[in-house]
Amino acid sequence: MHHVEQAVEYLHSRRQALIDSWLELVRVPSVSAQSEHAGDMVVAAHWLEQRLARAGFDCQVYETAGHPAVLARRCELPGATTVLIYGHYDVQPPGDQGLWDSPPFEPTVREGAVFGRGAADDKGQLLTAVAAVEAWHAVAGALPVNVKFLLEGEEEIGSLHLPALIEAHQDDLACDVVLICDTAAFKPGVPAITYGTKGLVYKEVTLIGPDRDLHSGSFGGTVANPANVLAELIASLKDASGRVTIPGFYDDVQSLSDPERKSLAALGFDEVAYLARLGSPALTGEAGYTTLERRWARPTLDVNGLSAGYQGQGASTIIPARASAKISMRLVPQQDPEAVSASFDRLVRQICGDRVRAQIAEHGLCRAYMAPLDSPWMTAARRALAAGFGREPVLIREGGTLPILPAFKEMLGADCLLLGYCRPDCNAHGPNEFFHIEDFVAGAVTGVRLLAELVGPAGST
Amino acid sequence: MHHVEQAVEYLHSRRQALIDSWLELVRVPSVSAQSEHAGDMVVAAHWLEQRLARAGFDCQVYETAGHPAVLARRCELPGATTVLIYGHYDVQPPGDQGLWDSPPFEPTVREGAVFGRGAADDKGQLLTAVAAVEAWHAVAGALPVNVKFLLEGEEEIGSLHLPALIEAHQDDLACDVVLICDTAAFKPGVPAITYGTKGLVYKEVTLIGPDRDLHSGSFGGTVANPANVLAELIASLKDASGRVTIPGFYDDVQSLSDPERKSLAALGFDEVAYLARLGSPALTGEAGYTTLERRWARPTLDVNGLSAGYQGQGASTIIPARASAKISMRLVPQQDPEAVSASFDRLVRQICGDRVRAQIAEHGLCRAYMAPLDSPWMTAARRALAAGFGREPVLIREGGTLPILPAFKEMLGADCLLLGYCRPDCNAHGPNEFFHIEDFVAGAVTGVRLLAELVGPAGST
Repeated sequence: MHHVEQAVEYLHSRRQALIDSWLELVRVPSVSAQSEHAGDMVVAAHWLEQRLARAGFDCQVYETAGHPAVLARRCELPGATTVLIYGHYDVQPPGDQGLWDSPPFEPTVREGAVFGRGAADDKGQLLTAVAAVEAWHAVAGALPVNVKFLLEGEEEIGSLHLPALIEAHQDDLACDVVLICDTAAFKPGVPAITYGTKGLVYKEVTLIGPDRDLHSGSFGGTVANPANVLAELIASLKDASGRVTIPGFYDDVQSLSDPERKSLAALGFDEVAYLARLGSPALTGEAGYTTLERRWARPTLDVNGLSAGYQGQGASTIIPARASAKISMRLVPQQDPEAVSASFDRLVRQICGDRVRAQIAEHGLCRAYMAPLDSPWMTAARRALAAGFGREPVLIREGGTLPILPAFKEMLGADCLLLGYCRPDCNAHGPNEFFHIEDFVAGAVTGVRLLAELVGPAGST
Repeated sequence: MHHVEQAVEYLHSRRQALIDSWLELVRVPSVSAQSEHAGDMVVAAHWLEQRLARAGFDCQVYETAGHPAVLARRCELPGATTVLIYGHYDVQPPGDQGLWDSPPFEPTVREGAVFGRGAADDKGQLLTAVAAVEAWHAVAGALPVNVKFLLEGEEEIGSLHLPALIEAHQDDLACDVVLICDTAAFKPGVPAITYGTKGLVYKEVTLIGPDRDLHSGSFGGTVANPANVLAELIASLKDASGRVTIPGFYDDVQSLSDPERKSLAALGFDEVAYLARLGSPALTGEAGYTTLERRWARPTLDVNGLSAGYQGQGASTIIPARASAKISMRLVPQQDPEAVSASFDRLVRQICGDRVRAQIAEHGLCRAYMAPLDSPWMTAARRALAAGFGREPVLIREGGTLPILPAFKEMLGADCLLLGYCRPDCNAHGPNEFFHIEDFVAGAVTGVRLLAELVGPAGST
């Protein structure tokens, strides 16, 4: 373990160089959603390729039908653990630049943090892992385990071409565990391992009534109004206790175990601060569960958009010809998205009857993901975080959906370790995104430790 | 009555001149909603002023804060009946001109009808009354009753400045009865008197939840989603039988009398043709009433517009910060719009509780109107229509709202006679608006007869 201390020392000695290169990558406006940045995507991909090549990696940049992906491998230890580090170099659009205190692509250091688009998500966070392998390479001339990187450029636009890429390079990507640094700490100073994410079923329902907008006076009361029926449909998707009424929805829901409920309760979640942060009048939801349980461990149903008839100023007296809603459900482990989707469709058609015609489109379908809590990888991650941050990590879940997690599990047979170092309020998709330098360094130290900790598990299994 | 036959003969002899002048007025693109047509409004108003002056009327064009109104009077018979003829010279925008078979403001005669924007609504229909007074003036050098015209230029944009004008000129507008030629026949060849219109309460409800759109995964299940609450609110406004659930909503509703139900049933309303015309899958509404009863004589509630969250293509996984709906109720006689409005507001706040904040705006408030069926004016109108169209008129109601009707009743104390001659499918606000020349002439003959028939009532009351 002599090398671990040397590598950590090396990291601290290169602090300014690490910050400088972090700023350099943030300066590349690699906005995947905007076609005018196609060239910047290539620049960012090659920047990472070259940096990993200098750390002894064998690198390829793969073209996709969208933006390129970088695959880098350094596998010199036959029989040893192989870790695949996944990250993304693309960023969200900066949005209204007037809301930024400093320009999104001119990163600046202030209050001990780097501010800029991608400072955290995911350029800053993925660079902690790059810094870790660089440190091992510098002090030991080798890595303690086999390491692969898969860095894509389409995460912010749905990872459209990633599954095909993984499938085409399944052998090159073979690994024992996947490391992803794209989540957040539980709160400042409290590192976290995210062990579960929710699944998703996203539907768009369009109800069609008359063949054009009708005068609501001349024709009201004689035909079904698609907007009224849509409201009735949405309202009937939940009962008074906040439970989803879609037949079979809860059939496969894994209930919360007593230990997990206790562990969530022990986190000391600050509901008052949470509510203040959202600006809602009240916390509310499915009866019988705490706010944190509802947020992380219970399935939900939300309307994401509504559209019908006249939406301008003042009045227009019409029965709209059609009304539509985007409705998404977040699923928990064991729920089958296909079954939920089919049951949703049946219920919609049953409620509409012959009053209106229903068109149903699907914009997303994904299982929940849950990492085993008792795996050797989890033990390694807890030790590494404790060493990096000087504090035992907490175990948390996430209400959002990461389709890559079940994809890695299905295609590579590997579970994921989700370690994130930025703060939960780091403005990841908003203006003034930031990542504290101390957290960045602690993340890199965690990475150095984790590579050492991962030596054990493969040997022991 | 010698003069009546002479006047009718005069109308027939001037048939071509009447059509020519009708086309001339339709050529003026007096679109009240579009400011570039402000000059055309003045042209149309003065065209009418000059035409009525030539028929012996004392005319004024009154400027308003919007478009001008023409007030014309010929009152030479002290103690005789005074009829006020209300109409409007403004027209709806023509909409997509590509949908017109001939240009909207280049009126053309084909298939026995004039096609053009305003051919019926209301230029053609009001000109039937102008032609009637011209005929009396030509053959008798006098009118059988006192006649006033009030022709406004803002009917299609809500008659914004009309109530103030009526109030300012209450003495000049004093009358025994108001004649309005702005409705339609029941069906081709079957003239109608419209004796009732519905009232209106138009609300806009905005529900506000979090202070910005939230990620539906990270925050779903913990705070109320304004779009879900809005759907719940709208759904709760009606019960399973289609009745409105707003407390007190039906308290003052005048129930349908047996004679009226019989009279509506006797009209032989063609439900199959009606449904085919609307293109809806089915006729439906409040249980216990026929389609025509629901349409004309029962209060209704319709969503006119819905707006929330993401409405673009594909998916966006947000809990929208706000959701809004435009909701209108059509009222029947005796319902108090103020009371309905207040009860609606209370119910909205009760349903929202402390889950979301509710903002409620009001875009319209108007009582229903019902003309007495046993008045001498009604008898006069039935006789005139029977003579003009060679067939007894039917008595019908209208689901739409005409705020001027209760306004005339309140400010002038006069009831309204609604006689319309165009067909119900005349495309009044759509492309290819038309008015058959035979119906125009029959309407003018009806006008000639009506002036003679109105002599009686004032003498007898």
